[in-house]
Amino acid sequence: MSNDAEAVIGIDLGGTNTEVGLVDREGKIIAKKNIATQNYDLFSGWVEAVAKVIRELGKAQPIKAIGIGAPNGNYFHGTIERAPNLPWLGVLPLADMLSERLKLPAVLTNDANAAAIGEMYFGKARGLRNFMVVTIGTGLGSGIVVNGELLYGHTGFAGEMGHTTLRPGGRQCTCGRVGCLEAYVSARGLIANAAELMATQEWDSPFKTEADLSPPVKICEAAKQGDALSIEAFRVTGEYLGEHIADVAAILSPEAVFLFGGLTKAGKFILEPTRAALQKYLLNVLEESIRVEISALRETNAGIVGASALAWNEFKS
Amino acid sequence: MSNDAEAVIGIDLGGTNTEVGLVDREGKIIAKKNIATQNYDLFSGWVEAVAKVIRELGKAQPIKAIGIGAPNGNYFHGTIERAPNLPWLGVLPLADMLSERLKLPAVLTNDANAAAIGEMYFGKARGLRNFMVVTIGTGLGSGIVVNGELLYGHTGFAGEMGHTTLRPGGRQCTCGRVGCLEAYVSARGLIANAAELMATQEWDSPFKTEADLSPPVKICEAAKQGDALSIEAFRVTGEYLGEHIADVAAILSPEAVFLFGGLTKAGKFILEPTRAALQKYLLNVLEESIRVEISALRETNAGIVGASALAWNEFKS
Repeated sequence: MSNDAEAVIGIDLGGTNTEVGLVDREGKIIAKKNIATQNYDLFSGWVEAVAKVIRELGKAQPIKAIGIGAPNGNYFHGTIERAPNLPWLGVLPLADMLSERLKLPAVLTNDANAAAIGEMYFGKARGLRNFMVVTIGTGLGSGIVVNGELLYGHTGFAGEMGHTTLRPGGRQCTCGRVGCLEAYVSARGLIANAAELMATQEWDSPFKTEADLSPPVKICEAAKQGDALSIEAFRVTGEYLGEHIADVAAILSPEAVFLFGGLTKAGKFILEPTRAALQKYLLNVLEESIRVEISALRETNAGIVGASALAWNEFKS
Repeated sequence: MSNDAEAVIGIDLGGTNTEVGLVDREGKIIAKKNIATQNYDLFSGWVEAVAKVIRELGKAQPIKAIGIGAPNGNYFHGTIERAPNLPWLGVLPLADMLSERLKLPAVLTNDANAAAIGEMYFGKARGLRNFMVVTIGTGLGSGIVVNGELLYGHTGFAGEMGHTTLRPGGRQCTCGRVGCLEAYVSARGLIANAAELMATQEWDSPFKTEADLSPPVKICEAAKQGDALSIEAFRVTGEYLGEHIADVAAILSPEAVFLFGGLTKAGKFILEPTRAALQKYLLNVLEESIRVEISALRETNAGIVGASALAWNEFKS
């Protein structure tokens, strides 16, 4: 059996769904299956269901290793630690549990880190040694690559750009702090930005009250239809993001920043103000050194593909 | 000749003085000499003077390599790029120039990075793989070590914590931006903080006007004498610093932060409020993971010792 025929498992664990895919060396998904995360009150029950799916997928092709992207995933320990959006409490030793059941090596990290390594293997970051991926969905996560390696820091919890301060004394964040970037740049942040715009001036818009703004995909669609309020809401959101990327860039000096996740469906409406604000706020020695682009990974499969890239990266030989 | 007898040259280039030292593997300075930087209108003249000093020092012990810490030093290119506090303009290829003249390998980085690598080799960061050194003097610099390596980023200019935003729309910074940490935490920042305190309430203090506050070493001495205004000025300064370290820590998750430079002479008056603010603002997953200490390197020699550590690190074999 040649190495070319080998594949890895990529697991994208989300609060609603778990996606499990068999992925080849080129990032192509050979087969995939879904499990409804919320149907499992017991973590061990969910682990059994995942193991069963992996055994089925393994009939198509020999499995080399397992990669897992999970919220609050700790790479050092292979654990999920106190993830607020999952049905199970405490510290969950997922990598070890799957590894023991399936007699396969397993590696785990958080979803933003998996997105970054997916971008490095199969997206626009191929060959880059210093870059970051910013995932903007319900929350804001970041996966940072320094010298060609994911940045984990001392604890394994490095890269929490979403919980650095954009506005001291500003909006309440779900993390308990105030003024975090995530409170301004995320699905929730976008709605708050649009609501602030509504409160400060009259708009000829289909949105009349804050309640109209959920789910935020409606703001994205309205922006594309030319709704001035929605376009302005994305402009403000992108400006906050670009302003803050300038700060993080002064620490990290990345070559590129890739935006990923639900809010990036707005395309130029978020990308252009982000780029403009980055140039405005960037330290002069860094000028022209950083490009900002939308991720090349398709959102539907990026979780699986990112998790598989983690496995390919960890178990290279 | 055994390796034990070998030594390296450490050069600490400052706007006023250049210090050149011969340093052994344990960070001990065998001999050192000073050159008045400002006496040389021509960069080439200063380079000749440095080369002459190195040849003299080399009579005592064979020299293995040269390490240089310099303002706006670019490690990738071995250059000094547009340093505002030096008498010479433009981009100066110092590492190559010394290397050619002396037929010795030479490596160059900025002074904060040299301080970080000095701390790693000869200070409190021995054995640590993720930490940062914050140098607080005229400005605020930072040297960051990630996975045991200095963080240079794509451009070589990573680690500019002093020029990340503490207060959006806040004080003017010398870099052209506003609200930078350096405008609040530095010699200049300390004076501004004290002046703000003077403006907002009456103090029974030897300082009556802003002009009384220079040089800031007077504020440090007054704090140690129990002057309430000076103690409060350091408390505010430390609080700004701890608040901002919390943000940078959410990106990097360091194990330790070492404070270095003139303002740290205030000891507990800056250290304790920094620690308290860090705990207050730190993201919950990082709680208790980061210690803040004053650097172990003595300021008088740290520049030379840090530059020598750079050389030992680069030319290990």
